[in-house]
Amino acid sequence: MGKAPTKPVSGMRDHLPAAALTRREAFRRVEAAFAAHGFVPLETPAMERLSTLLGKYGEEGDQLIYRVLHRGERLARALGREPVEPGDLSELGLRYDLTVPLARVTAEYRAQLPPVFRRYQIQSVWRADRAQRGRFREFTQCDADIVGSSSLVADAEALVVLHAALAALGFSDFTILLNHRELLRALIAASGIPAQSEQETLVVLDKMGKIGREAVASELGGLAAVGPDRARRLLELVPGAAEDRDGDLDRLRDLGRALPEGPGRSAASDLVELFDALDGALGEAAPVRFAPSLARGLSYYTGPIFEVVAAGGAGSLAGGGRYDGLVGMFSGRATPAVGFSLGMERILMLLEEGGAFSAEGSAPQAMLCPLPGIAIRDTLRVARTLRAAGVRLDVQVDSLKLGKQLGRAAAAGVRFALILGEQELDGDCCTVRNLESGEQRSVPLADVPATLQS
Amino acid sequence: MGKAPTKPVSGMRDHLPAAALTRREAFRRVEAAFAAHGFVPLETPAMERLSTLLGKYGEEGDQLIYRVLHRGERLARALGREPVEPGDLSELGLRYDLTVPLARVTAEYRAQLPPVFRRYQIQSVWRADRAQRGRFREFTQCDADIVGSSSLVADAEALVVLHAALAALGFSDFTILLNHRELLRALIAASGIPAQSEQETLVVLDKMGKIGREAVASELGGLAAVGPDRARRLLELVPGAAEDRDGDLDRLRDLGRALPEGPGRSAASDLVELFDALDGALGEAAPVRFAPSLARGLSYYTGPIFEVVAAGGAGSLAGGGRYDGLVGMFSGRATPAVGFSLGMERILMLLEEGGAFSAEGSAPQAMLCPLPGIAIRDTLRVARTLRAAGVRLDVQVDSLKLGKQLGRAAAAGVRFALILGEQELDGDCCTVRNLESGEQRSVPLADVPATLQS
Repeated sequence: MGKAPTKPVSGMRDHLPAAALTRREAFRRVEAAFAAHGFVPLETPAMERLSTLLGKYGEEGDQLIYRVLHRGERLARALGREPVEPGDLSELGLRYDLTVPLARVTAEYRAQLPPVFRRYQIQSVWRADRAQRGRFREFTQCDADIVGSSSLVADAEALVVLHAALAALGFSDFTILLNHRELLRALIAASGIPAQSEQETLVVLDKMGKIGREAVASELGGLAAVGPDRARRLLELVPGAAEDRDGDLDRLRDLGRALPEGPGRSAASDLVELFDALDGALGEAAPVRFAPSLARGLSYYTGPIFEVVAAGGAGSLAGGGRYDGLVGMFSGRATPAVGFSLGMERILMLLEEGGAFSAEGSAPQAMLCPLPGIAIRDTLRVARTLRAAGVRLDVQVDSLKLGKQLGRAAAAGVRFALILGEQELDGDCCTVRNLESGEQRSVPLADVPATLQS
Repeated sequence: MGKAPTKPVSGMRDHLPAAALTRREAFRRVEAAFAAHGFVPLETPAMERLSTLLGKYGEEGDQLIYRVLHRGERLARALGREPVEPGDLSELGLRYDLTVPLARVTAEYRAQLPPVFRRYQIQSVWRADRAQRGRFREFTQCDADIVGSSSLVADAEALVVLHAALAALGFSDFTILLNHRELLRALIAASGIPAQSEQETLVVLDKMGKIGREAVASELGGLAAVGPDRARRLLELVPGAAEDRDGDLDRLRDLGRALPEGPGRSAASDLVELFDALDGALGEAAPVRFAPSLARGLSYYTGPIFEVVAAGGAGSLAGGGRYDGLVGMFSGRATPAVGFSLGMERILMLLEEGGAFSAEGSAPQAMLCPLPGIAIRDTLRVARTLRAAGVRLDVQVDSLKLGKQLGRAAAAGVRFALILGEQELDGDCCTVRNLESGEQRSVPLADVPATLQS
């Protein structure tokens, strides 16, 4: 068996300790931010019925769902038929996102859940996508949603917790781009584009930041249901981004005045109110901007939509919005909701590259290196004392000369070796050696934690 | 779609917030204990090649592996053949345990891992087992292992971190039962039972605690390769449990003297040394006992074996031992290892029943209830102040009368409602209402955290 392939399967990753420490520390911080804002965790099974999953992610999505093969008699029966039908081979699939499970859970446990449910969910999802750089077939999704209220306070709170989660991860320079689906719909209608072409129009409009106004105009003009005239009219109605916050508010008030009474005008005034709420929630310097052409491709959004972009072109860190039609899909009850996904896989890449983030707080600090001849019970007694004092301590387990032991300590990635010989044992101390500088000195056991800190 | 089934799939569970909070807090504590002992995390994909998984868990295990169906052209090709071969339908399966992935990882990344690798892994595994009470098809496995050393210090350290993890979970009354595979093998050989019947003999012997000596004798006597005489002889050689620790050590020394020079005698003296080491590591009152008939069914153990039982018959909390032949299965290099699995699903059941454990530290503490007319920006400004001071705070988002708001707060499971009206806003305070007692009083915002604690 010596030559069996040992790489992880295509599109999936092993996270070795250094990466896994960073991941776990990042998720711990995000969870703490969620908890501080009254969000509680939900966990659902990796598998769902195919009947639950299929038809929720479009035709392309259906193709990307991993299906679990029947076993035993059930499989034999399916294979006994002619022709064998693919649909008979499986009835379970792997979780594709965390929104369909949320919808299922809210339908199943309505009586046990609060009427307004702040839930977060951090679990793996699987998509049989073409594997490519930065896109994985297994990745951790990290969603927070407020389910059960259509109040603008819920939208504001979703943005507040998103802001807090990014701050907890060490991001300080990012912008929350804000728009409203109803505002876009009203502008599209006002430009004469028929309602059934709204979705494809939104998809093109959303590219503004990437390809620019000219290219959007030309792509829109090329759509059969739009054409150059309506494209031009729409781009006259959708303003460019303003210089500053005051400009944002001016544009929103202008749009509100320009639109007829209705959902579009309300949307503009909702956004003005949301800006005001966020000033209270995040402080006057709240990094929120009106992004008139932000559309977010997903068809299910119904209200405010948002996206967080990091400074320096590092791309989108998170995105979300209000989606009042989705969570009720299994319960049959209208269930308004607003929430977001943190793009944790990209965020983790940035954290690892940036180095602004350290998981040192949970990595081992030191390795205890007993010299040959020290009794195991004494080694472990000293280890116990140090751990009780808060030192995250590895113990070198093999009987080796000091030089080899120091090599082991370096290989384990700790910064300090704590050398324990007869003399140290007698004096209730150990020799603390900094593995980077090579400096070492004898330190009483009680003072070791402080020495390692300094 | 209103009537689609919304229960979780058979054998798998939704963890609603109260349960999920407990789970996450429990795993956090276990992780902190692992980290304090120099263990670092590993994460591997949910899917492995079937060639990696098959043949590692026995024939029965192979049947319990969930297989992932091919898609697209690959599936079409397989279905185009006649007859359709089940083996052509799939090449990936879901993780069945965490040991095979560990073996794969140590083979693949040898140069990146330290020579002695303390790894823990906490991830879901899937087994298509018959669903029954307390047995699930998806459950979280929690393993810690020290890979790469055959030193007894590694065995001791595995027991030390196991003890610390259970203590971190709030268990104080448990016993670590200890035995040694080589000791059992020597006793089986000395009783005249042929080596090829060793495994089935161990399986029966392991039942001693459950069914008693008489039943074990009769079951062993009934095995064709054993028979009544050898069964009797073996049970004369395997002592009963001693009264106390001193008795344990006497029995081990007696066994060491009775056995001929060889692995059995060494095993007895290793256990004596392990007891001594654990006295140093855990203190004199270390809850460790020699369990002469503890065998642990799994065939791969090669050295010390152990099991932790909770007081009061609550059963096994964890089990493990040394298994020097397994981790090298993919690398082809001998790779000694010792470790254990925490039975987290049972532990979590005990924690939930026992109530000795609280996840309150991450549940929301209070709900801010703004009276009608309070501006959103003011509500969220106050929320920001309270959260910055460390209050885990939900905010009531809908415009409701106070009575309804208090109902919402109770439904969210918080203990306090923080009422915010004009008067409170002017005075930079809020009215803190204890939802259990109904008591309420006005408290300056700065004093709210302390008030909620008391």
